[in-house]
Amino acid sequence: MSFTRPEPPYYAVIITSTLDAANLDGYEAMDKRMAELGRAQPGYLGRESRTDPQGRELTVLYYRDAASIAAWQQHPEHLEAQRRGREQWYANYHIEVARVERAYGFERE
Amino acid sequence: MSFTRPEPPYYAVIITSTLDAANLDGYEAMDKRMAELGRAQPGYLGRESRTDPQGRELTVLYYRDAASIAAWQQHPEHLEAQRRGREQWYANYHIEVARVERAYGFERE
Repeated sequence: MSFTRPEPPYYAVIITSTLDAANLDGYEAMDKRMAELGRAQPGYLGRESRTDPQGRELTVLYYRDAASIAAWQQHPEHLEAQRRGREQWYANYHIEVARVERAYGFERE
Repeated sequence: MSFTRPEPPYYAVIITSTLDAANLDGYEAMDKRMAELGRAQPGYLGRESRTDPQGRELTVLYYRDAASIAAWQQHPEHLEAQRRGREQWYANYHIEVARVERAYGFERE
């Protein structure tokens, strides 16, 4: 995992998405800006993200609580990015907001 | 997304893991068997999974409820696979059990 989690409960936002490869003008700059802005939001904990060669992305964003997620969703710059994403960059996306109830792991000595 | 979700609430098991590239004897056969067996478990809904070129995997398994997850965790063949995974195949893994509270999406017309 790419960052150390707190003890549960905390929140995960699971995002599956596919970019529209033909319409990516402006995407990279906006994506970078949203990553910077998102990291600075109160309650943001970290992220895991993988993209396969077909451009299908799976990302999990982690937050301290549901209120932090709601605040970020309503951030004016983020609302504009969401609008442009639907109009232009994304062929599809699906977002799930989930409460992490328990967690455990293993690391080779 | 790779399968149609039911209405929330339902459950997600978020798995971040890294395989030990030097110790993958027997892994592929066991992985295939676990995928088959896992799909047949009561309450299993589907999965999303991506692996990057460094072998870092991010997988989300979806279930109807927490009891279905607990039952699969205790399945005898799965317990044996988990034991061998810790001994041999995985450098690390981290597992989070989360309750999906809401979901929404977008699909280009």
